[in-house]
Amino acid sequence: MTTIEDSVAKSDKIRTEQIVRYWQAANYLAAAQIYLRENVLLREPLKPEHIKPRLLGHWGTVPGINLVYAHLNRLILAQDVSVLLVTGPGHGAPANLANLFLEGSLGERHEGYQRDGDGLRHLVRSFSWPGGFPSHLTPATPGTIHEGGELGYALATAFGAALDNPQLLVACIVGDGEAETGPTATAWHSIKFLNPHRDGSVLPILHLNQYKIASRTLYGAMSDSELESLFRGFGYHPLFVNINHDDSLVAAHQAMRDTLDTAFEQITAIRNASTPERPRWPMIILKSPKGWSVVDSLDGKPLEGSYRAHQVPIPDPQSNPEHLQTLQRWLRSYQPEDLFDESGCVRGDWIEVAPTGVSRMGMNPHAAGGQRRQPLQCPPWRDLAVDIDPKSRGQITASDTKTCGEFLKQVVQANRGRYRIVCPDEMDSNRLSAVFDATDRQFMWPVADHDEHVSTSGSVMEILSEHTCQGWLQGYLLTGRHGLFPCYEAFVSIVDSMMGQYAKFLKRSGEIEWRKPVSSLNYLLSSEGWRQDHNGYSHQMPGFINTLLNKKAENVRIYLPPDTNCLLSTMDHCLRSTDKINLIVASKQPMPQYLSADEAAKHCERGLSIWDWASNESRSPSDQPDAVLACAGVYPTAEAVMAARLLSRDLPSLRLRLVNVTDLLILELDSFHPHGLNEQKFVDYFGVDCPVIFNFHGYPSAYQTIALESAQHHRFRINGYREEGTTTTPLTLLAVTKSIDSVC
Amino acid sequence: MTTIEDSVAKSDKIRTEQIVRYWQAANYLAAAQIYLRENVLLREPLKPEHIKPRLLGHWGTVPGINLVYAHLNRLILAQDVSVLLVTGPGHGAPANLANLFLEGSLGERHEGYQRDGDGLRHLVRSFSWPGGFPSHLTPATPGTIHEGGELGYALATAFGAALDNPQLLVACIVGDGEAETGPTATAWHSIKFLNPHRDGSVLPILHLNQYKIASRTLYGAMSDSELESLFRGFGYHPLFVNINHDDSLVAAHQAMRDTLDTAFEQITAIRNASTPERPRWPMIILKSPKGWSVVDSLDGKPLEGSYRAHQVPIPDPQSNPEHLQTLQRWLRSYQPEDLFDESGCVRGDWIEVAPTGVSRMGMNPHAAGGQRRQPLQCPPWRDLAVDIDPKSRGQITASDTKTCGEFLKQVVQANRGRYRIVCPDEMDSNRLSAVFDATDRQFMWPVADHDEHVSTSGSVMEILSEHTCQGWLQGYLLTGRHGLFPCYEAFVSIVDSMMGQYAKFLKRSGEIEWRKPVSSLNYLLSSEGWRQDHNGYSHQMPGFINTLLNKKAENVRIYLPPDTNCLLSTMDHCLRSTDKINLIVASKQPMPQYLSADEAAKHCERGLSIWDWASNESRSPSDQPDAVLACAGVYPTAEAVMAARLLSRDLPSLRLRLVNVTDLLILELDSFHPHGLNEQKFVDYFGVDCPVIFNFHGYPSAYQTIALESAQHHRFRINGYREEGTTTTPLTLLAVTKSIDSVC
Repeated sequence: MTTIEDSVAKSDKIRTEQIVRYWQAANYLAAAQIYLRENVLLREPLKPEHIKPRLLGHWGTVPGINLVYAHLNRLILAQDVSVLLVTGPGHGAPANLANLFLEGSLGERHEGYQRDGDGLRHLVRSFSWPGGFPSHLTPATPGTIHEGGELGYALATAFGAALDNPQLLVACIVGDGEAETGPTATAWHSIKFLNPHRDGSVLPILHLNQYKIASRTLYGAMSDSELESLFRGFGYHPLFVNINHDDSLVAAHQAMRDTLDTAFEQITAIRNASTPERPRWPMIILKSPKGWSVVDSLDGKPLEGSYRAHQVPIPDPQSNPEHLQTLQRWLRSYQPEDLFDESGCVRGDWIEVAPTGVSRMGMNPHAAGGQRRQPLQCPPWRDLAVDIDPKSRGQITASDTKTCGEFLKQVVQANRGRYRIVCPDEMDSNRLSAVFDATDRQFMWPVADHDEHVSTSGSVMEILSEHTCQGWLQGYLLTGRHGLFPCYEAFVSIVDSMMGQYAKFLKRSGEIEWRKPVSSLNYLLSSEGWRQDHNGYSHQMPGFINTLLNKKAENVRIYLPPDTNCLLSTMDHCLRSTDKINLIVASKQPMPQYLSADEAAKHCERGLSIWDWASNESRSPSDQPDAVLACAGVYPTAEAVMAARLLSRDLPSLRLRLVNVTDLLILELDSFHPHGLNEQKFVDYFGVDCPVIFNFHGYPSAYQTIALESAQHHRFRINGYREEGTTTTPLTLLAVTKSIDSVC
Repeated sequence: MTTIEDSVAKSDKIRTEQIVRYWQAANYLAAAQIYLRENVLLREPLKPEHIKPRLLGHWGTVPGINLVYAHLNRLILAQDVSVLLVTGPGHGAPANLANLFLEGSLGERHEGYQRDGDGLRHLVRSFSWPGGFPSHLTPATPGTIHEGGELGYALATAFGAALDNPQLLVACIVGDGEAETGPTATAWHSIKFLNPHRDGSVLPILHLNQYKIASRTLYGAMSDSELESLFRGFGYHPLFVNINHDDSLVAAHQAMRDTLDTAFEQITAIRNASTPERPRWPMIILKSPKGWSVVDSLDGKPLEGSYRAHQVPIPDPQSNPEHLQTLQRWLRSYQPEDLFDESGCVRGDWIEVAPTGVSRMGMNPHAAGGQRRQPLQCPPWRDLAVDIDPKSRGQITASDTKTCGEFLKQVVQANRGRYRIVCPDEMDSNRLSAVFDATDRQFMWPVADHDEHVSTSGSVMEILSEHTCQGWLQGYLLTGRHGLFPCYEAFVSIVDSMMGQYAKFLKRSGEIEWRKPVSSLNYLLSSEGWRQDHNGYSHQMPGFINTLLNKKAENVRIYLPPDTNCLLSTMDHCLRSTDKINLIVASKQPMPQYLSADEAAKHCERGLSIWDWASNESRSPSDQPDAVLACAGVYPTAEAVMAARLLSRDLPSLRLRLVNVTDLLILELDSFHPHGLNEQKFVDYFGVDCPVIFNFHGYPSAYQTIALESAQHHRFRINGYREEGTTTTPLTLLAVTKSIDSVC
């Protein structure tokens, strides 16, 4: 980064008046997207037939986004700084699209949106129309790593993007609606983790326009002194930009400009300081009227500065002549004829506010992280494999996650600066402590001398907020890096909805050519429901499997490795994979070990295997078993292996086959899931017509979801988790939770 | 409540030394629960065989909970105030159980726990043992309305309990682990909603013991000035109690006592003040060493004041003689021989710290809210019913939720002070605005003159945090009142996990005799996925249905009323019901109306009906249809009715039956769900062997979960939501999301 003196000098090149005009152009284009299908440059008087038949979009947040975008542009030009913008109010897409159009990145990424009259008409007419851009940010929007349709996740995502990107400034607009959500409320603490020397910086811009859809926001009702106190308490240095209706545009923009310069100076000072402890990063609290620059009132009621400006501020220009006239007056207030020439090309030097090349926020390389991604260096996991004596499988026990921790330690060592583990304070509890031989928990606030494995620089980030962990990791992955989210099984459902939105993001990204594959989002769930000595019923909730099953098959994998070597092989595979959400459920308690490294590798590659050594089948391969004991999950597998042993002893004539399933989606038909078995292979494993008792880790409904398409499932009897339990012995737990069998 | 002068006078009756001894007794009993199976009064030297074979429990938070409990007891005695305690660190159950034992409420609620030697032995020995109390709070714990196993929800629950209970003081312990969660982080804002004249008060006690399971907490790393600034920003008046290792016990307890008196004085002053705007309620920030009063160190490492005190602080007294001696030294430090006599009965006047009767926190009547619950007064919904001309069904359209809003308005009017609607700023958007003709949004912070339907007293609570809404409602319902949670369908999954924990609470409550039924938790989901003109793909997520399907059948209902009259009938039913989680999915957009009030009532009672008027069946009742068009949900029903009309026109010879399903669980076998159809009734509706095309609102997996048990499902072809979509026209949306049919 440049020095403060350079900064001031370069800043001067763009006049504030230019920024005002740029902002007005963006406002005009955004409003036009909401309203116009013809006469998009307003060269003739507005008529009802110029208005779109359906008016869609959200105006209220647009002028604020445009203000931020314009002034970040100016900052980029002045400082030659790489800025990634995360827009929390993602439903303000008309604003982002207008800016992306003006800077040319929209036209570079998408045919037909080039910066001329035709492109402009296409931008305006196609918005929120089949084939055009929707009214929310999506992966198709250049420069976007966050959708914003479900509010709350922008801030954590922004911090995730900044980690290990020391040259990057991530600006994050947080709307005051979004600020009321829990995930945002706690993500402010992320500042306590950011290392000014090794990570990039995050500049949160809390945009208070005072109103949500229909009522006042909490933050909009707070006094400036409350706001200042709150954010100082979080650890920030808040800078206010207070824009009122009566302010001149130049004065308002000058205030934003000066404040952004101040913020950048403070950021630079923090980054240049030698002592990074408890750094007080700046944030901007931007107060502006909701829908700023729309007309003051409509139908005798306030419009600008009221919740009525939230969506389509003038609702009925088609049939209400007064609305039509008001709309025209509003649109003309931006003087479109001075902004664009007759052909629709930009007129005037205000366009100099937009940077060029990769300096444009729409073309920031970090936002298309798949293009930057380098494969992870995975150490040879076989070196850590448990030795298995084929004559005594299941006799020795080991903690699967403990050895996995050794593997992850080596992953950290081989991939410093591009691999992060996020965790809600459960690394040790989940037996992953070996990682701390190679790295620390990163934390910038002071700790005690006797605190262990914590320092200002480390690859592990622990906060007791699953939401923040998820947001950090999303930001980190979408900017081209790698990571892992170990979590208690029961509590990963806290991010059900976040994961669902991320799955949507991945699904759409896969349809966009310039979004190359990103590293998979890997969950390692341990402290599973079947072994909750301390914690009982509240810690028994395997429903994340079900939630994943509703996502697009091409983006989802669910693994239940039965022992340490299978877990190592699975982890190795998942860390190398791309564009997936991988769920790995594993045990932390010492449990029986079955497969050698080679066997585990083959088992995991196939997804399921017949375990001959645990079966009691006839010698002739053409014979069918009398029954199949299938199992998936560490505890269900241990039970099944023991059950098979007892049955072989007590009923030696029973031809019993044991099938272990480690890739759950293998059970789905191949027509429904790329990992699925075809019908022939299915009967190869599960027999033609014998009963199958399936000892399953999750809710029976998860199996049902997968299996209903199969003609075979009527033979399956499912033992799974059935919402019974308490803190008690593992044996009692197994008994109560499986007491009601389901017979298909 | 009493005056400040009374307060000081009464406070004096209990000496601080008594409180110290009471606290030590509670600490001793908690530690004994974790460790001892014999020699529970430590009357002989501790031997390995006295130690439990499995050591379970969490010590770290216990001394803090005991401190709060002891001093709240003193406050209750001094002020004659009704105190409900919500314990966020619910895994500190040994503390709560010790106090409940000492005050006698445990023995009153559960046989064998009477306050004598036998009861004491039973308490100590049975903890975390099959049949005994688990190490987390559960519904079986007297005085509990919050489990605490999944962290984050205590504070919102506490505020919910205080609403409309002007005489109640809800004390809420928030651990510093829990404080890191998003739901807690935003629940602090609840203070902006509490009306000091009409609601009770909430006293949050943020207990900072600095450490989580394995590392320092964020709040534990913050300076006092940061903490003060943060909570002043939220709107509180923070009061600090700083307890250090070297403080004398009397001094530490005196500080807690004085601070609690100060807090109560401030609360009383706020309640007595005439102007309730922006009241600065007190909160207590209690800093004490983790595991306070355990030994300083073990094996050369710090114990008290370190994360090692989190669970079982001395891990191996059975086989490590030094650990055994250390444990004995620790336990003896509480002088159990002076606390309890030879027989195990209480010795000394310290027990006077415990209140009696309903003043005991374990017997607070609000905590067993089912006992206080009065049925809701439901207005006659038929008065609001849409008129239906049987000759032109489906011809007129209406917004179902708009009329439902009229019904809810009357519910509000008839049940003031015991019915609340919580909503994430979506009342108007979901067309429930009629409610605001009868009440306002309650909000205590200043708003603008032109803000509408907001005042310091109202039955509606809007905050853009689904977590807070859910927590408020849980607290309100569990204390015996009624409520509704309207939400966008896509975003209710934000509380997937919270709802899952609440379902566990309900399930366990149903097994406890003195927990009488509470009002159901009713969700009204609108702005559903099938009609997202503005919002598109991010707003399409019907997965909450799936999440509910994994809960216990007796606690869960899922309704998809097809029109206004069915919605009215369903809402009326749900509001009267108890101990359920009712999910109602309805449309806000104008949609066709089909059934008269009487028909709707019958349809909803049955759960499904053959719609003759939309079918094209043969005249003979014995004939089977050629095909069944089944439908569930407003949009799928509209499609199915139209499809049936077209088919009847173009294929008049096809015997087509239309079945509408409004109670989704009717499709489950009656052996699996109390609402389910038996096999005979199933074929009565769906025919014997004809194909059934099921046009379903949710993910196909939800149907699969229900139907796999049925022998009939192979005839079903499911059209449902398949994770395809964008912002576009409703027609395009239907086309893309149903493009891949599933054939069973």
